[in-house]
Amino acid sequence: MAKKKLKAKSYKPKFRTVKPELPGGFRDYGPADAILRQRLFTKIRNTFEVFGFEPMETPGIERTKILLGGEAESDKVIFRVATGRGSEVKDIKKEELSLRFDLTVPLARFIAANPEIPKPFKRYQIGKVWRGESPQQGRYREFTQADIDIVGSSSMDADAEIIAVISAVLKNLGINSFIIKINNRKILEALPHFCSFPEKKLMSLLRLIDKKEKMGEQKTRKEILKIFNKKTAEKIFRFLEISGNKKEKLIKVRELLKRDKTAEEGIRELIDIVNGLEVLGVEPQNWDIDFSMVRGLGYYTGPIFETILSSTPSLGSIFSGGRYDNLVSTFTGKKLPAVGASLGVDRFLAALDSLGLLKKKPTTVKVLILNLDPELKNEYFSFARMLREANINTALYLGDDRAFQAQLAYAVKKEIPYVIIYGDDENKKNVVAIKNLVTREQKEIPREKMVEFFRK
Amino acid sequence: MAKKKLKAKSYKPKFRTVKPELPGGFRDYGPADAILRQRLFTKIRNTFEVFGFEPMETPGIERTKILLGGEAESDKVIFRVATGRGSEVKDIKKEELSLRFDLTVPLARFIAANPEIPKPFKRYQIGKVWRGESPQQGRYREFTQADIDIVGSSSMDADAEIIAVISAVLKNLGINSFIIKINNRKILEALPHFCSFPEKKLMSLLRLIDKKEKMGEQKTRKEILKIFNKKTAEKIFRFLEISGNKKEKLIKVRELLKRDKTAEEGIRELIDIVNGLEVLGVEPQNWDIDFSMVRGLGYYTGPIFETILSSTPSLGSIFSGGRYDNLVSTFTGKKLPAVGASLGVDRFLAALDSLGLLKKKPTTVKVLILNLDPELKNEYFSFARMLREANINTALYLGDDRAFQAQLAYAVKKEIPYVIIYGDDENKKNVVAIKNLVTREQKEIPREKMVEFFRK
Repeated sequence: MAKKKLKAKSYKPKFRTVKPELPGGFRDYGPADAILRQRLFTKIRNTFEVFGFEPMETPGIERTKILLGGEAESDKVIFRVATGRGSEVKDIKKEELSLRFDLTVPLARFIAANPEIPKPFKRYQIGKVWRGESPQQGRYREFTQADIDIVGSSSMDADAEIIAVISAVLKNLGINSFIIKINNRKILEALPHFCSFPEKKLMSLLRLIDKKEKMGEQKTRKEILKIFNKKTAEKIFRFLEISGNKKEKLIKVRELLKRDKTAEEGIRELIDIVNGLEVLGVEPQNWDIDFSMVRGLGYYTGPIFETILSSTPSLGSIFSGGRYDNLVSTFTGKKLPAVGASLGVDRFLAALDSLGLLKKKPTTVKVLILNLDPELKNEYFSFARMLREANINTALYLGDDRAFQAQLAYAVKKEIPYVIIYGDDENKKNVVAIKNLVTREQKEIPREKMVEFFRK
Repeated sequence: MAKKKLKAKSYKPKFRTVKPELPGGFRDYGPADAILRQRLFTKIRNTFEVFGFEPMETPGIERTKILLGGEAESDKVIFRVATGRGSEVKDIKKEELSLRFDLTVPLARFIAANPEIPKPFKRYQIGKVWRGESPQQGRYREFTQADIDIVGSSSMDADAEIIAVISAVLKNLGINSFIIKINNRKILEALPHFCSFPEKKLMSLLRLIDKKEKMGEQKTRKEILKIFNKKTAEKIFRFLEISGNKKEKLIKVRELLKRDKTAEEGIRELIDIVNGLEVLGVEPQNWDIDFSMVRGLGYYTGPIFETILSSTPSLGSIFSGGRYDNLVSTFTGKKLPAVGASLGVDRFLAALDSLGLLKKKPTTVKVLILNLDPELKNEYFSFARMLREANINTALYLGDDRAFQAQLAYAVKKEIPYVIIYGDDENKKNVVAIKNLVTREQKEIPREKMVEFFRK
């Protein structure tokens, strides 16, 4: 240990050694993961663009009051940001900056700040968001979201389009077993009226309903009976028990809540969406109506969606959203309808991984040129140059170890598919030896045929 | 105004209107800019991968002590991050988190934390970094960097490769007039010895030299004479006056600093790089040796690079880097040589823009299907479905305005190249009318030929 320190000192490090730790809740993505993510982003992007969504970017930092204006509940998990050393805390109050916790509130801010943008405006954004969850619970505090939104359309066709994109993204990635659950906040908002309980109790009820899957039906019933009287609870149970195929559910809920104007509006919206999904060709087994589905965020005002993968239901929803017709008005005072959904990229990748649907590629390098003989260095460099000019991903071994075995071991460890071997022998014969590290096959190729060999 | 407020209230916004402002120093990228950036990222990525660099991602948030361990000077501009409401400042100290200000220090942390990674390790990373610059000065506080680094190679071939990538990135984007300036910290570090002044004055001198372009030669000389005695100043001037072609410069500097061991090491390194650049085919007019080039960051230990575009020298360096052999040892105590460079994407885009080298594309949408007749909605949806299945970027008009002129105006404003018009007439004739909004040409096509029309 003492020796190590001495050694370090001789290289003049300016500071004491700092432990190279990441804070809890944050992750690195090494090459294999980053390649996977990149491929996924490209596919998602393409699907979004095919559906007529345009890309957009907003900064990671926003004014705190913008973020909380959009969603006051987020105050607990928001990351505050400020310059100045640790002890200088004034800045925190002065500028009031925070990291975005989603991509929806910044979109609403952008729309409000740029009224000249033609509407409807369909945009997608793929970006990082931050939430200061307690890292002890194994939750991530930085994650990537891929969002699609349609701003300025009150038509339920927009909601149907969002659902169609969700379906297309999953299908294009080879996932066929999933269910997009659809509900409407307006129907849930009718419950106090229909079941005769005060409006302020609705949030507690929705929170219980939201946990139904986790708690099981028995426990949910018990919990509901703790908060509501028996008569009210019975009515809630009747609502939660609505079953049948999609059309039956819509008929039953309409019968049940018939005297409520808001509920009727919500039901009519769902019927419009159902028609849209049919014409857009979203397969019937991939979506359903679920009156017990509740989305957490406060800004939803109409239809809401959640996507459960049949293979990994425990992951929860991986692609969720809904209509939020009041969010932009927070910044303008004027109503502007909007609907959208957000794909949780990290969760989704975990699902794809467990389904074996995305094979990890360890490296983007196709060829490694071994650097064996210092006398031949110029040749190695010129091979690299030729291959790169032909757009073939090429690395030249740049380490200190001159031994053939060491350099080969490096290529094997990195899982680079090909190495080029060029020593005295090959030089004399005017060939290069190309070793395929997958098949272990090695062959000699005339130097001038090298680029051609890799092109095919 | 009063009326507006009343209207807003009727839509039940939960909070008072919040002004939709971005904090100073932050930017949005609307579709046209985001499309441009995306295209640029793809091209940069491809060039990096062709040169054998693999992608990687690290989080935006790191431990403050990691960031400052890498570069203590950054304390002034670092953005601290903490959860908790504005008044609760304890968190700031407790967790000590900050936003990364570059991608190099996080790379060193990653390398130190993952010693099993085969070396040399060549990675690229494109990502956002944050610096708490004073927003009054019109400086950005969030920007994108595209970094390439080679870790674990002490060979000057690695430095030559980094310079070759810089050149290739620019050439692949159509930029041919640029100069990559090359210097070596080791030569600059010989100045106290050669010019006989105390080492602690070196930083002040380098800062002055760094500002030479801005201040002009006269003023620089004056400032140097303020800090150093005449004899020392004369020696500094002799160093700064070294001129000639690359080889002449190297000979002259060697003569001037001959008794200094560190300088000699630096000169030999530069000679190795010069040889490498020649074999790698980096064109001689695109790089030069410049002994007055100084890089700001403290962690450089050897060769340093800067890239100036001949058309926009005022932008300063857009792609800079150097060797930092001690940075990883900050986290491990063990030396691990490394070299890299960082492209300032935002500055670079500004340059490409002023050169007219990247034509802005206003939208990714190719076709807008007009939504004219509610009776024909199912047809519109099925057109959208067909075109999307053929991978053609298609939007369906989702606004409330049924008027043909309004929908056409929308397409024109968004610069969508084609619209599909389908009304009663077309329905009867079993055709679709396709209007090219660039040529203003309109033609009728049989319905079943529609996809084919857009495919070509």
